[in-house]
Amino acid sequence: MLLRHLLLPEILDLVEAGRLNEVRDFLATQPGPEIAELLTALDDKDRVLTFRVLPRQLADEVFSLLELPFQDLLLKNMAQEEVRQVISGLSPDDRTALFEELPARVTKGLLGLLSDQDRKQALTLLSYPEGSVGRLMTDRYLTVDPESTVAQALEHLRLRGTDSETMAMIYIVDAKGHLIDDIRLRKMIIADPATRVADLLDGHYASLHSLQHREEAVQVFRKYDLYALPVVDSDGILLGIVTIDDILDVAEQAATEDFHKLATVSPLQISFKDATLGLLFRKRIGWLIGLVIVNIFTGMGIKMFEDTILAVAALVALMPLLIGSGGNAGAQAATLVVRAIATGEIGSGDWWKLLLREIGVSACIGVAMAGAAFFLGWALGDIRVAIVVALSMVTVVIAGSLMGTVLPMLLNKLKLDPATASVPLITSMADILGVLIYFSIANAVLAFFKLPAT
Amino acid sequence: MLLRHLLLPEILDLVEAGRLNEVRDFLATQPGPEIAELLTALDDKDRVLTFRVLPRQLADEVFSLLELPFQDLLLKNMAQEEVRQVISGLSPDDRTALFEELPARVTKGLLGLLSDQDRKQALTLLSYPEGSVGRLMTDRYLTVDPESTVAQALEHLRLRGTDSETMAMIYIVDAKGHLIDDIRLRKMIIADPATRVADLLDGHYASLHSLQHREEAVQVFRKYDLYALPVVDSDGILLGIVTIDDILDVAEQAATEDFHKLATVSPLQISFKDATLGLLFRKRIGWLIGLVIVNIFTGMGIKMFEDTILAVAALVALMPLLIGSGGNAGAQAATLVVRAIATGEIGSGDWWKLLLREIGVSACIGVAMAGAAFFLGWALGDIRVAIVVALSMVTVVIAGSLMGTVLPMLLNKLKLDPATASVPLITSMADILGVLIYFSIANAVLAFFKLPAT
Repeated sequence: MLLRHLLLPEILDLVEAGRLNEVRDFLATQPGPEIAELLTALDDKDRVLTFRVLPRQLADEVFSLLELPFQDLLLKNMAQEEVRQVISGLSPDDRTALFEELPARVTKGLLGLLSDQDRKQALTLLSYPEGSVGRLMTDRYLTVDPESTVAQALEHLRLRGTDSETMAMIYIVDAKGHLIDDIRLRKMIIADPATRVADLLDGHYASLHSLQHREEAVQVFRKYDLYALPVVDSDGILLGIVTIDDILDVAEQAATEDFHKLATVSPLQISFKDATLGLLFRKRIGWLIGLVIVNIFTGMGIKMFEDTILAVAALVALMPLLIGSGGNAGAQAATLVVRAIATGEIGSGDWWKLLLREIGVSACIGVAMAGAAFFLGWALGDIRVAIVVALSMVTVVIAGSLMGTVLPMLLNKLKLDPATASVPLITSMADILGVLIYFSIANAVLAFFKLPAT
Repeated sequence: MLLRHLLLPEILDLVEAGRLNEVRDFLATQPGPEIAELLTALDDKDRVLTFRVLPRQLADEVFSLLELPFQDLLLKNMAQEEVRQVISGLSPDDRTALFEELPARVTKGLLGLLSDQDRKQALTLLSYPEGSVGRLMTDRYLTVDPESTVAQALEHLRLRGTDSETMAMIYIVDAKGHLIDDIRLRKMIIADPATRVADLLDGHYASLHSLQHREEAVQVFRKYDLYALPVVDSDGILLGIVTIDDILDVAEQAATEDFHKLATVSPLQISFKDATLGLLFRKRIGWLIGLVIVNIFTGMGIKMFEDTILAVAALVALMPLLIGSGGNAGAQAATLVVRAIATGEIGSGDWWKLLLREIGVSACIGVAMAGAAFFLGWALGDIRVAIVVALSMVTVVIAGSLMGTVLPMLLNKLKLDPATASVPLITSMADILGVLIYFSIANAVLAFFKLPAT
């Protein structure tokens, strides 16, 4: 953070004065993450100029740290040979992340620039479904033959270790490629060098399946507290590893997407800070227009009860309280369920239990709120209004809460995204329910008091 | 996941038949994370019984993997010597996490059971502020003298490495304890054993400050893609390390808390699945009652305009559309800002830029929505209603969006939690604004058409 603010003016001066040699000499001594952060603060032209003067290896690192729109910009402004160098320098998981976001046409062009081996690997990784663990895999891991001695294994690791993303955990693979165990490098380093590796194994290991959704992997990592997990196919063949730094990104991105969806903002794909006005408009307008339709029904509901409203005008003044409370309780319930599904805390086996508990919770909340509403109704209207408002409050709060609980569960059951049960959607639907419940109860109560509404 | 479902009935049978020896023999061969998951599925009595038969080392691991309420239960049901063993077996960071959640009285008792050295360390860690990086620290890291050779350093690591949480990164510390660099174990393993460690250093390293908030650490980890980061004090003295598995937990917990707060649910401290009815009631009722007050103002607003309502009844039917749209646009804006503050994407320097952009975005959204509203108003009322609804829509959407943008920024500026600008709060406040704007515009337009509202 500091570097960016300190260096930005100086770098800008140098870039604008065309003193690119000095820019290169200076940046060559800086760590990649700082340079990546600095690049995002430059304008497009300066960003391209500055990136192109970076030494080869540093450029590779910086490129892999940039967000997609910046990567895209740089690729568009580089000669073919430069593009080839940069994408060849990416690690397999970073390359897949780039390719999956670019238009198919561009990806095809880029694939053509890779070596045969890299292209084959990229195509294999891209063949896993979007959002799957397979697409996060890297091949930079180390395996050891269970029959070798610790000394042989360590020598093997010394020779092969340069390129691996993590050496903390070593994987044990049989002759056919099946994953049979894992072992900590630590355990081998402190073991007697003459021991056979097989004698150090415990037969327990955690692994991911290549077709699993990447958000499930977050919970597996949390459970095992490991820095990397091996990925296998249905036959148990070791395909690659996934590292926890990518999983931290998955967790943060998935949470951000769910936040946005819960507020009816479509996924931005880019940081909020860098989003353009047009992009934000497009990502926000869809649901807002959609909810207009829901709101029309509420309006129609109110119109149905116009006579009741004209008879007891105090009812209208209390309407926002009633329909608002149902929506708020529903928003709480929906958010609790959506987040619990996302973190894997609850599965379909828990639904009936959760639904029963929600009925209990919302009944308690409804009764407590009805107490407050009763006095308000009495103050603003009369005893009739007080009774109407109290009865409606219990019903509306329970109805809103159950809707907020059931809708995300239902969406999940239908293999749709539970976060589509957004707070504005729940609130708007609670409005309709609220109006219908409120004025129906009003009509009934007023009729009971022999003061017909019409 | 599988194990729990497969074994639960069998284990239950064995526990209930009192065949605890068989339970122990069976569980002794299982990995800790699976046993921890299994324990959470048992009832309190069986959980205590099962935990107590676990072999010592396994019990330590399983205990560290359990959520706080379960740890608490076990501690309450163990003899003092067992408690001493379990808390002595915890790693320093896990111990701090347990102590900070327990009542001070209990923590004090537990501290008395620790060895002098462990107690001193625990007290040091607890002296860091709640939520700070300091409290996440562990001392299980390795340092190397820059003047030693690679061979000497590796031998030192071989002897000392058993207890360290990560050996992927080794820290270089001068004689006074200042952190001067870091180096990957990988780099040392593949280096010529005769090289001096100092000659392998690059002078660049990332570190955290012990007083930094732990949520900031999430973003530092994401930036540098490391598995552990060293923690220093203001003098640059190395105090400990923080590992990425704890950071993944921090990220997930912080996101969950923000989700709940955005829906006016106070932090649960326990998983949603395990929360009791009473706890959920207490965590949800507060804000719901609070929002009743906000809703009363909306009602008072409506009451002010009773005459207008009675004159043109179609206006009431369109009210939910107007105030709903303002609330929805505000909810979008608030959620975008709250999440962007939480992920560190935006800081106070960006506010004016973001505010200007939001004015632009909300004006575009407002105009688009006004188009739809105009036709609706015409259909349900007349040209006057159409004009009122269209004009109100633009104003209400802009007002709601700006409120949703400014409120979290303001809270952040005041060092309060931006997520307090919850969606129900924004929606309720937008209701008040919406009613005032809508009926004021209605009065003005009706007056202009020479059809006074009163």
